[in-house]
Amino acid sequence: MSLGDIPIQLEVGGLTGSAPAVLREIAYLLERLTRYGEAGSIDLHGLPLSPADRRWLLDQLGRGEIEIALEIGGGSRIVETAYPGVWWVAHDNEQGVRTSEFIEVTLIPDLVPAHPDDVESGLKNLKSRISDLS
Amino acid sequence: MSLGDIPIQLEVGGLTGSAPAVLREIAYLLERLTRYGEAGSIDLHGLPLSPADRRWLLDQLGRGEIEIALEIGGGSRIVETAYPGVWWVAHDNEQGVRTSEFIEVTLIPDLVPAHPDDVESGLKNLKSRISDLS
Repeated sequence: MSLGDIPIQLEVGGLTGSAPAVLREIAYLLERLTRYGEAGSIDLHGLPLSPADRRWLLDQLGRGEIEIALEIGGGSRIVETAYPGVWWVAHDNEQGVRTSEFIEVTLIPDLVPAHPDDVESGLKNLKSRISDLS
Repeated sequence: MSLGDIPIQLEVGGLTGSAPAVLREIAYLLERLTRYGEAGSIDLHGLPLSPADRRWLLDQLGRGEIEIALEIGGGSRIVETAYPGVWWVAHDNEQGVRTSEFIEVTLIPDLVPAHPDDVESGLKNLKSRISDLS
């Protein structure tokens, strides 16, 4: 066996070197958000991140004050990072399998606001419930 | 002992009759939200609600898809009701004592959006972290 047979070890502790690029992309999106008010996102499942990269990234981003749980066709979790406006968004399917994972860079995560149409139909239901009471 | 000595029982199962008024106030605020886009809130601690009233109200409002936990000087919990745009908001102090409880009628609960100033100072921190990496 010669040295040439040993696979080249590009990873340091499982890190591939991709994660810092994600951090720079986040900074670029935050810059766009503050300058132009434009939101953006990064699809983490579309990137060649190793589990170690993912841990490194989570560690760099830290935790903020807000955590949001949603029950919409499976479960979703939106966790504010230590950088306001940067949210870690994960969706699981009804079997509990992680189906997507994004970094969302925005003032308000997409899934949170109530939709005006839903508010209106809810109001109709509430009125009919109230009239049933009396 | 005559009938006149028996205290008049105004409560039915602990209900004081105040809770339906809160439900009508919520419908009024939802109407304002849909018509004029104006948000509103009801301070539940400022109302003479019995524990039974509170349970009745929670039961009438039901549960929606979103639950938000915030760690800001104690803990806060924002729970979407079954009526989109109607949120049950409770704050606890650092000793875990419930200090306030509101119904918020709004598309986006007040505490959720990131503040532009915080986003900007976070971006500065992120940039300096990135430059430390290289």
